[in-house]
Amino acid sequence: MTATDGPLPVVTIENREGGGPFLIVCEHASNHFPSAFGTLGLSKSARVAHIAWDPGALALARALSGALDAPLVSAGISRLIYDLNRPPHAPGAMAAKSELFDVPGNAEISGNERARRTEQIYLPFHAALHDAIAHRLAAGRPPVIVTVHSFTPVYFGKRRDVELGIIHDADPEFAEAVLAEAEGRTGLICRLNDPYSAADGVTHTLRLQATPYGLAHVMLEIRNDLLGDGAAVAEMAARLAPVLRAALSRMVAKTGERAAH
Amino acid sequence: MTATDGPLPVVTIENREGGGPFLIVCEHASNHFPSAFGTLGLSKSARVAHIAWDPGALALARALSGALDAPLVSAGISRLIYDLNRPPHAPGAMAAKSELFDVPGNAEISGNERARRTEQIYLPFHAALHDAIAHRLAAGRPPVIVTVHSFTPVYFGKRRDVELGIIHDADPEFAEAVLAEAEGRTGLICRLNDPYSAADGVTHTLRLQATPYGLAHVMLEIRNDLLGDGAAVAEMAARLAPVLRAALSRMVAKTGERAAH
Repeated sequence: MTATDGPLPVVTIENREGGGPFLIVCEHASNHFPSAFGTLGLSKSARVAHIAWDPGALALARALSGALDAPLVSAGISRLIYDLNRPPHAPGAMAAKSELFDVPGNAEISGNERARRTEQIYLPFHAALHDAIAHRLAAGRPPVIVTVHSFTPVYFGKRRDVELGIIHDADPEFAEAVLAEAEGRTGLICRLNDPYSAADGVTHTLRLQATPYGLAHVMLEIRNDLLGDGAAVAEMAARLAPVLRAALSRMVAKTGERAAH
Repeated sequence: MTATDGPLPVVTIENREGGGPFLIVCEHASNHFPSAFGTLGLSKSARVAHIAWDPGALALARALSGALDAPLVSAGISRLIYDLNRPPHAPGAMAAKSELFDVPGNAEISGNERARRTEQIYLPFHAALHDAIAHRLAAGRPPVIVTVHSFTPVYFGKRRDVELGIIHDADPEFAEAVLAEAEGRTGLICRLNDPYSAADGVTHTLRLQATPYGLAHVMLEIRNDLLGDGAAVAEMAARLAPVLRAALSRMVAKTGERAAH
């Protein structure tokens, strides 16, 4: 890193004191390649493609953060340098191949470089998220964790019809409530644990940050052609914010019912 | 904290580069009450009792760290100020009562004080442990996590006959291997998930640090009258180090067998 680079934009926390029940996370918010890591030998077109980030996810996460008065923890570095939703020993943490693209700078990554990215990106991002969650726990306000992702409409040449994927780690309860509300309210093609599920190793953030505390959680995957511009993002946020609120009410009511019996 | 206090002794890492397969953790190593937090209104006798720390646990953890060439991550502050094996929203994180003892300084703890202890003790301890684990993962050497505790022979006036408690979080495999080896090798009264189990909320460190990565793990609970002096500790370490080594071999052999079928 040169002296003029300044600190790495690993993590940003917006609306930190947001008083709502949710805490929003966006691990794949950015396709920034800081000069400290270079461009991994990728063409410009690869660096703006879905392999480098989740297009539209940060804008949607911000709109949800505003609508729900929720803190938002987002990353500022491309997932190809370090995929924050993967543990350091997963091949996908610093993927040598992503969908149809080779990532030359990750092809023969040294142990030192793997350790450096873990130290400089993975650890500070998850420490900041852990800090935000722990403060809510200490205050007696356990947050509901919502991670916001987008996926490509065409994957390995195949069209995906699902529009909203609703994914959970160990505890399905909140995700199931989100599915029920989303099906009733949005008109989107909604599916549980599709196009990915925990079995694909895509719930690392939830597993590391939500499950150990027994926090209600969901990972939202929105097909990125539905987040193509500001108007589309605003419309999607206006659909999804009420879904999340209603899903929480539904879950709380169910828990209360169980407690009463 | 006064200017002369220096940094809080929250966490110490010994033998950081230890090349063995284990990583040892000792959350209840110390009965130190830094002046920044005071003595919580406790008498001197309460501050040396088992409620303030796990007597003998650090000495045993050090001996095991040496015998197994394992990194050791230990805490330097009494569990009554913050119990690092509890999440911030658990009553037991800053317990107002521990066994027969009232803890006056925790009786009416403010939200600010709860946040301060979480920020100054819980978060940096677990960040340091996470860092040590993540580096091992990045290097392709996932560690087996062993937490070392001791328990009082008399609890609420009742004698406990168990001498070695072997406790696990979600994955029982390594703990069951430790039990089998300990029963065959030590002559101790050994029990699985006794005198406590995950259902009692005592596996927070494992749940936060080992389970999300699928790491093999065990929590060892040794009755503290068996750790009364240096000779007793050395003898216990000499019994337990071979148990841990053999348990790991047993688990690896079993995994290999499964893989071959």
